[in-house]
Amino acid sequence: MPFKHIFRVHWVDIDAAGVMHFANFFRYFEACEEEFYRSISLPFNTIRQQYGILLPRVEAHCIYKAACRLGDLVEVTVSVSEVTEKTITYVFQTVRQDDGKLAAEGSIKCIAVNSEWKVVPLPAELAKAIRDKGA
Amino acid sequence: MPFKHIFRVHWVDIDAAGVMHFANFFRYFEACEEEFYRSISLPFNTIRQQYGILLPRVEAHCIYKAACRLGDLVEVTVSVSEVTEKTITYVFQTVRQDDGKLAAEGSIKCIAVNSEWKVVPLPAELAKAIRDKGA
Amino acid sequence: MPFKHIFRVHWVDIDAAGVMHFANFFRYFEACEEEFYRSISLPFNTIRQQYGILLPRVEAHCIYKAACRLGDLVEVTVSVSEVTEKTITYVFQTVRQDDGKLAAEGSIKCIAVNSEWKVVPLPAELAKAIRDKGA
Amino acid sequence: MPFKHIFRVHWVDIDAAGVMHFANFFRYFEACEEEFYRSISLPFNTIRQQYGILLPRVEAHCIYKAACRLGDLVEVTVSVSEVTEKTITYVFQTVRQDDGKLAAEGSIKCIAVNSEWKVVPLPAELAKAIRDKGA
Repeated sequence: MPFKHIFRVHWVDIDAAGVMHFANFFRYFEACEEEFYRSISLPFNTIRQQYGILLPRVEAHCIYKAACRLGDLVEVTVSVSEVTEKTITYVFQTVRQDDGKLAAEGSIKCIAVNSEWKVVPLPAELAKAIRDKGA
Repeated sequence: MPFKHIFRVHWVDIDAAGVMHFANFFRYFEACEEEFYRSISLPFNTIRQQYGILLPRVEAHCIYKAACRLGDLVEVTVSVSEVTEKTITYVFQTVRQDDGKLAAEGSIKCIAVNSEWKVVPLPAELAKAIRDKGA
Repeated sequence: MPFKHIFRVHWVDIDAAGVMHFANFFRYFEACEEEFYRSISLPFNTIRQQYGILLPRVEAHCIYKAACRLGDLVEVTVSVSEVTEKTITYVFQTVRQDDGKLAAEGSIKCIAVNSEWKVVPLPAELAKAIRDKGA
Repeated sequence: MPFKHIFRVHWVDIDAAGVMHFANFFRYFEACEEEFYRSISLPFNTIRQQYGILLPRVEAHCIYKAACRLGDLVEVTVSVSEVTEKTITYVFQTVRQDDGKLAAEGSIKCIAVNSEWKVVPLPAELAKAIRDKGA
């Protein structure tokens, strides 16, 4: 079951065209990803401290379908679409709560690196947790 | 000839992993796009006021190859890869100035809308200017 | 009674020192202000459309007492400290939820302008609503 | 002699009222501060690595006088107004280049902390460099 997180579109998110700036969707995708990890008791800090790894992004993609405006409640959904030896790919959907319209859908792929920023395999326990709970 | 714009990576761009936050690349892609339009005497405001159109994004994509860190000078290159009746697609490259390494490459596709946010054809004059000068 | 709004500190808010970037406190002050206006049925858009006014900031101030870190739940409190003919001043407090520690306190003063960006008196109805409900 | 840094106001800086969002002035104040430190051969990273200190903000203040709009060239000026045993205070001015109008002026006070986030005296060499060159 995909993980869901609702947020409010604030003034600071909106650009001079009166809509959420396109780059801010990635901020909310990431915030949803963070909440997903928190929901499985693996917040970013724990991953960093317990496993000694970071998960920098190697790819980000978004298709914009409908604008989000000031005050909109928006539901972001994340699910894990692929876990390889060293990478995790999430897919995201952003839905406006008032009319149920899909505003944006996208994906983020990240890779495991250690504290020297070398690519390393995902810790087995972490990979398993993400596979089990993010699908 | 692609258009180039150099920027400095500042503290506010950097995340807790010590590298430029992935979403900020899109901010710099867009800043470079703005400078390109300014260089052909068509700044965003002119497009909005003269032609009555906005160019919201319908797709954004980025592949991250190498991290950018605090104080790095980074060169962003933009070129127009496709102009259709109603859309413009740009491709971007981000190169670190100290070692010439490609940090990120991506694309942004935008669509012409009028002030009621209806999709409209690109004004011929604008399409021509972008085709001629952005290739 | 001051209005309260709780938010989570996300990765994108955190700088390379591992703490919330100082300018982001103003983003959360403003988000709390927005929620306050929404709570009294006067969201920013209504103020703009119904009264034809905007409330740009003329002053912002913040004293930082303790850092906010990734994943912290933070409660922002806003109350209206002064309403003059043309200005509104809010005071804010930001408290960490885990230890009850004051992280930051500040103020924002804004002024009423019309759509030509001329300073104008606050609409009486708006001034009254803010005085009554924001104290 | 105060240190000066010119920047361009970009689309991402502008809010739905068509002006630079008030919190972004602090981003540009800080970027100017960074360039000042770079100009005296003490970039933030050097301060962190050579002296083992960070300079988190304890106070930030800004008075807004005139709006900055899309495409404006803006000159930010920084000078050091006070250096105490443990703190540095800068004052900033932001001037629009087209009409020479003061857009904003403000201040930022920071305090020296070590890697455990304990307040410590400013290294004498650093304090001297800032006093000599930032006045």
